[in-house]
Amino acid sequence: MSDLAAQPLDGDPAARVLVAGANGFTGALAAKIVWDHPRLQLVAATSRSDAGKRLDALYPRYRVPIELTELDLDRLEGIDAAIVAYPHGAAAPTDAALRAAGVLVVDLSADFRLRDMDTYERWYGEHGAPELFGTGVYGLTEIYREELRGAELVATPGCYPTASVLGLAPLAEKGLLAEVSIAAMQGTSGYGRSSDDLVHFSAMTENAFPYKTEGHRHRPEIEQELAALGSPVPVTFVPHLLPLDQGELASCFATLSEPTSAAAVRALYGERYETEPFVHVLDGPPNLRALRDTNECHVYVTVAEHGKVMAFAAIDNIWKGASSQGIQNLNLMLGLDETLGLT
Amino acid sequence: MSDLAAQPLDGDPAARVLVAGANGFTGALAAKIVWDHPRLQLVAATSRSDAGKRLDALYPRYRVPIELTELDLDRLEGIDAAIVAYPHGAAAPTDAALRAAGVLVVDLSADFRLRDMDTYERWYGEHGAPELFGTGVYGLTEIYREELRGAELVATPGCYPTASVLGLAPLAEKGLLAEVSIAAMQGTSGYGRSSDDLVHFSAMTENAFPYKTEGHRHRPEIEQELAALGSPVPVTFVPHLLPLDQGELASCFATLSEPTSAAAVRALYGERYETEPFVHVLDGPPNLRALRDTNECHVYVTVAEHGKVMAFAAIDNIWKGASSQGIQNLNLMLGLDETLGLT
Amino acid sequence: MSDLAAQPLDGDPAARVLVAGANGFTGALAAKIVWDHPRLQLVAATSRSDAGKRLDALYPRYRVPIELTELDLDRLEGIDAAIVAYPHGAAAPTDAALRAAGVLVVDLSADFRLRDMDTYERWYGEHGAPELFGTGVYGLTEIYREELRGAELVATPGCYPTASVLGLAPLAEKGLLAEVSIAAMQGTSGYGRSSDDLVHFSAMTENAFPYKTEGHRHRPEIEQELAALGSPVPVTFVPHLLPLDQGELASCFATLSEPTSAAAVRALYGERYETEPFVHVLDGPPNLRALRDTNECHVYVTVAEHGKVMAFAAIDNIWKGASSQGIQNLNLMLGLDETLGLT
Amino acid sequence: MSDLAAQPLDGDPAARVLVAGANGFTGALAAKIVWDHPRLQLVAATSRSDAGKRLDALYPRYRVPIELTELDLDRLEGIDAAIVAYPHGAAAPTDAALRAAGVLVVDLSADFRLRDMDTYERWYGEHGAPELFGTGVYGLTEIYREELRGAELVATPGCYPTASVLGLAPLAEKGLLAEVSIAAMQGTSGYGRSSDDLVHFSAMTENAFPYKTEGHRHRPEIEQELAALGSPVPVTFVPHLLPLDQGELASCFATLSEPTSAAAVRALYGERYETEPFVHVLDGPPNLRALRDTNECHVYVTVAEHGKVMAFAAIDNIWKGASSQGIQNLNLMLGLDETLGLT
Repeated sequence: MSDLAAQPLDGDPAARVLVAGANGFTGALAAKIVWDHPRLQLVAATSRSDAGKRLDALYPRYRVPIELTELDLDRLEGIDAAIVAYPHGAAAPTDAALRAAGVLVVDLSADFRLRDMDTYERWYGEHGAPELFGTGVYGLTEIYREELRGAELVATPGCYPTASVLGLAPLAEKGLLAEVSIAAMQGTSGYGRSSDDLVHFSAMTENAFPYKTEGHRHRPEIEQELAALGSPVPVTFVPHLLPLDQGELASCFATLSEPTSAAAVRALYGERYETEPFVHVLDGPPNLRALRDTNECHVYVTVAEHGKVMAFAAIDNIWKGASSQGIQNLNLMLGLDETLGLT
Repeated sequence: MSDLAAQPLDGDPAARVLVAGANGFTGALAAKIVWDHPRLQLVAATSRSDAGKRLDALYPRYRVPIELTELDLDRLEGIDAAIVAYPHGAAAPTDAALRAAGVLVVDLSADFRLRDMDTYERWYGEHGAPELFGTGVYGLTEIYREELRGAELVATPGCYPTASVLGLAPLAEKGLLAEVSIAAMQGTSGYGRSSDDLVHFSAMTENAFPYKTEGHRHRPEIEQELAALGSPVPVTFVPHLLPLDQGELASCFATLSEPTSAAAVRALYGERYETEPFVHVLDGPPNLRALRDTNECHVYVTVAEHGKVMAFAAIDNIWKGASSQGIQNLNLMLGLDETLGLT
Repeated sequence: MSDLAAQPLDGDPAARVLVAGANGFTGALAAKIVWDHPRLQLVAATSRSDAGKRLDALYPRYRVPIELTELDLDRLEGIDAAIVAYPHGAAAPTDAALRAAGVLVVDLSADFRLRDMDTYERWYGEHGAPELFGTGVYGLTEIYREELRGAELVATPGCYPTASVLGLAPLAEKGLLAEVSIAAMQGTSGYGRSSDDLVHFSAMTENAFPYKTEGHRHRPEIEQELAALGSPVPVTFVPHLLPLDQGELASCFATLSEPTSAAAVRALYGERYETEPFVHVLDGPPNLRALRDTNECHVYVTVAEHGKVMAFAAIDNIWKGASSQGIQNLNLMLGLDETLGLT
Repeated sequence: MSDLAAQPLDGDPAARVLVAGANGFTGALAAKIVWDHPRLQLVAATSRSDAGKRLDALYPRYRVPIELTELDLDRLEGIDAAIVAYPHGAAAPTDAALRAAGVLVVDLSADFRLRDMDTYERWYGEHGAPELFGTGVYGLTEIYREELRGAELVATPGCYPTASVLGLAPLAEKGLLAEVSIAAMQGTSGYGRSSDDLVHFSAMTENAFPYKTEGHRHRPEIEQELAALGSPVPVTFVPHLLPLDQGELASCFATLSEPTSAAAVRALYGERYETEPFVHVLDGPPNLRALRDTNECHVYVTVAEHGKVMAFAAIDNIWKGASSQGIQNLNLMLGLDETLGLT
């Protein structure tokens, strides 16, 4: 390995971390957060297609002077934890190999988010490691914090479920939700690095549009989590692509099961998130610039003219919606303060 | 008047047109469309604050070489029609003076959109010409075409009502709507020319946010029109500002009063808009770039997993959402082909 | 051929036109301009990789309802003229085949722009039709108008040479230029449709940078044309990519061979371009929005503190910098008014 | 004073800092950097027009929970240093009052940048504190580091001079420069918070243009500093506004006084900046995204075809071009490590 292949050791790291798929948007960001983390050591950042390139050549602004290498699953000695930023399908077998070697795994893909195999297969196809299916902890930190402490395989939620569930959890937990429609929107980083006509600057500038109108795979994930919180309700969901890089908003229209005043709804949100380090309940609508490049979720809730609750939840889709939530969870898995490296 | 104060006469115009408030975004665009129109002659473009400036200095891309003058309501001879692009409140008395002089009026403001004075006063304050209240025709061309032929005072709909009502009309007309939630979004031209911190490029780039979450005055207008079509239903509505200039999308989640298949819903939309020159029913989601700088409305409708109808309607907010729809109506008022000057 | 493969005939066209490579940015725009042109009939739009797709599916805003087909050089009967929007190298042999069949050719590539084969080979490699090299007319309309009337093979200039040479021609023609440095900048449409990391919206938004700093192949083309005008001077040139779609600016710093007052320089520009339909000499700096989607070139010239001339020339890089200039020339080749279809 | 008026004390600050004019872009950023700085305590952030508002309401992303107050020059006890972010003209008298009270002053305005009063008056008008004129240290850290240690009044350079002088200093110091032309470009944050038509999102998106073409006041400042380095040469300079928020590029075309190879020029730059913590000499052209929100300057230099040197220097115009360079200098004034709070 070259001098560039691992972060110089500084003090006693809580874990030596591998990032697999570090050439994509979320993998590269995960590598950056690990690199800047006071207790994690980035020992390898891997990529098949970009092996040999430096990460700070691909993503200069992240300033991670490490060379991308190919992942060798036979040489995992000295690796305590891995963040796997692979496409769904490809992640599961890698996760399995990493777990077999005793490596803690934070999976950023969809492979372990769903808890029903039929649903998984409908939306994603055949699963790559069915023997592990159902064994991961769903990494929405604010909901599953206790299960995440000491977990060994964590499925980082999809970006839309992160915003949507955090935007609705205080209602769902009280069983107050009857049904919900969600207009979600995010920037082009959510589309991933793989370029095509759609995210060419010339196509996206001065443009915006709904997509996946016939069904987006994050909808069943949102329904799964609202049900787990106590509200097994129908969710209507449509995402939109916006002409910006990072940022995501879930604008939720919720019908409540019983009339509830705006004051009561706000009190509910205030209490629920009072002690959360990263979820801030605002007293006006959130905006995406305010939380870019952070692990925060900004929530605002109000009651509209005819009684529907409108809940707005904003995140940075590649931070709290992916990589930084992964590190928040890794902190818990390692017994560290969950905010470490994230503020 | 200087040589720059009126368009040179070319043939026999159907009407000599004044644009009042031609220094704002929608007034300037109206002046441009009149200028380019084969049967309209732009005889004056007025502005209090920018009088003396040339319109093609303020808006070079519109290429209208006319000098802005102050409106003189005592000298309206030779003017057949006026497009009034004033703020609500200020428009009504000007409209009254113009009508008193026999001038046909297309009002781009909100002053004659609502048909209930209490609702008007709740959202806009005191009305500036109560004697005329209720006498205007609502200028959503595709709905009120017959009333618009020969009308003398037309209230151009709000941009959000234009998109929302066109997106829902086929359902509303059949009485199929039970309730609807609308997440609408538009670019910064909808905010108007009056600059403030919010629309500074440095504030809007890489940003997006909901606004007017406690109530937007376009909601009662949408409810009024859906009711007029046969569906007096509750509307929950929230607008968002996007980092783009021109373009607007209404993403509507509608609960139907009876189960209806996607095929049936699509057939309904197809039939309803089959002969409309400017409303196009697409077979996939619309995007804003495709109709920028046009009078078109692109509609797509589908039925989501749990039965809600999702209807998407896109327009250019300052064209079909304001100025070009005003000219579409003026064409009808003058007995011209409604597409004249708009294709 | 399907009904979608050719434009319905309307009147007596001056030419039946084929656009080869109509799936790229400049080819698609050429097809749109031909489609909208009052005297040209678009009889085929071809593409190897996108054959079978509709052009209005790839570029909805151009509204050209034609199906892309594969080019068949053995079936050119009925085609009077072709616009060839191929990459350099690939264009020349196609041009040769088209010419052999008697088809007038407007080449948008670099294959016939340079007049020195060594220079061509240095910057572009082996030429694909050396027997035709030197036989094309350089299609900078404002300079070569007379040669273009009746020409049979026209090389449309590069976008940077178009702006740069128009910005400097009045000085070059008088032999006043001693040397020039050009900082040019353009939007991402200049990069072409072929997506890669560089033009991903997430990479370009909030970014800008110089590129090809070690040498850009448009520099020798600019030098060739300034020399042809009477000023064989050294040109230092560097392009920049900006976060916008269409638009190009050449900011030129010119040392004159003799002291010349600002007034004299301005008079020179005013006279030179007085009768040009598309080149406008402004009395202040140009901006890109003002001429987007037009064939115009906006020029401003001033003399800086220490005597250098600063000349600024702005165009839309895919209009005047490519496709619409191609049609301007085709008009001349066909004996039509050069502004036809372009205003 | 409310609880929000000063930063809680944490340890022993090196200085208690006031930011005057903290409601503007550069003042707000200065307040943020002071707030996050390990050895500075923000004791007041002042603003006349926004007094009473919270800074984190005006600039949520800076997360500075302090209330803006009005500056009271009679109550400066307990203040060790001030950053003055006032417009030129207004800054000087405030600086004088602060200095009279023994407060160290970092002025972000132009009031003490120039060393020749005639030049000052030509470009800025009457000076507000002529008795102090000439007593400030020019705060281009990499050039005046020794003078800045212990300085009491520091004039932070203009953003364009910062980039331009850092881009040319290695040549200027060796007396190698003969003349230079600079095409500079920056985002809309350089225009300041004061909104007008020009920086409305609707005006700037998809736009770019040169401005101040008849003379920009940063040109004499650049000439002053190049002369001070040993190269009293004529500078031709033109700035451009780009559709982005933060970021600035100076693209410099330099004629050398003697032929110098690219290798020699690069060696010169490499040596000159080898030990600089914030100036990085790249081996390819810089881009603005890579250094956004940092105090860095990225430089690339090459020699063009005909012998001119092309030097490119990129900075974040409100960081290194204003506020963070101010803190870099304040660190030196206080005897601290100059990188403190900036990495």
